[in-house]
Amino acid sequence: MAMNHAASGELIDVRPLGAALRQTHSRTLVRANHLEVFRFVLAAGQAAPDHKAAGALTMQCLEGAVELDAHGRTQILQAGDMVYLADAEPHAVRALEDASLLISILLRRT
Amino acid sequence: MAMNHAASGELIDVRPLGAALRQTHSRTLVRANHLEVFRFVLAAGQAAPDHKAAGALTMQCLEGAVELDAHGRTQILQAGDMVYLADAEPHAVRALEDASLLISILLRRT
Repeated sequence: MAMNHAASGELIDVRPLGAALRQTHSRTLVRANHLEVFRFVLAAGQAAPDHKAAGALTMQCLEGAVELDAHGRTQILQAGDMVYLADAEPHAVRALEDASLLISILLRRT
Repeated sequence: MAMNHAASGELIDVRPLGAALRQTHSRTLVRANHLEVFRFVLAAGQAAPDHKAAGALTMQCLEGAVELDAHGRTQILQAGDMVYLADAEPHAVRALEDASLLISILLRRT
C-alpha cells in the first residue's frame, strides 16, 4: 500500500493498468473520514479468501475478471461491473484473469 | 432517477453508455445506509451549477469529458479519472462532451 493518498480535489488515475498490472501493487487511493478507496490488484489465480470488510463497500472491476462469492452465490465481475456489499457481508474474490478492482469502503463507525 | 436500486450482491452495469447516452437519464444505482451511488448523465454543454453535495463524495468519469470546478481551480476529468471531494466542498461540473459520471456520496450523518 502506498503512503500518499489523494487530497480533496486531486485527480486520481483509475484507468486499467494493462501490461503494467503484474508490476503494480495494490494501493490505497483515498483515506478520509469514514472512507477508504483502494485499487486491489490481483494476478490471475490470486484470491482474497472469505472475509468481512470494515464496513459496507462497492467493488468495481476496472479490468480483467474475478469471481465473487457473496450471499451464497458466485458471480463473475468483468470490466464495467460493480457490486454493492452491505456491511459485514462475508465475501471472497478470485482472479480468473489479471484484474484490478476499485474498492470503496464506508468505514464502520463504532 | 430510477426507482429500483441494486440490492447487496447484485451486479450493476457501469460500462460507458456510448450511443445510448443521449437517451439515458441519470439514475440512482445504490441507496443504502449512508451511501448513495448514481450515474450522472450529461449531454455536451450541460452543467451542474456550483453546489454542495450531501456529504463527502467520489466522482469517476466513465466516458466523455467534464470540467470540474472545486478548490478554486478547474480540472478536466476524462474516462478513468476520479476525484474525491471532502464534505461540503462547493463544486460545479460542465460537460465538454457527452459524459457520464459515477458518483458515490457518503451521506452526512446528522
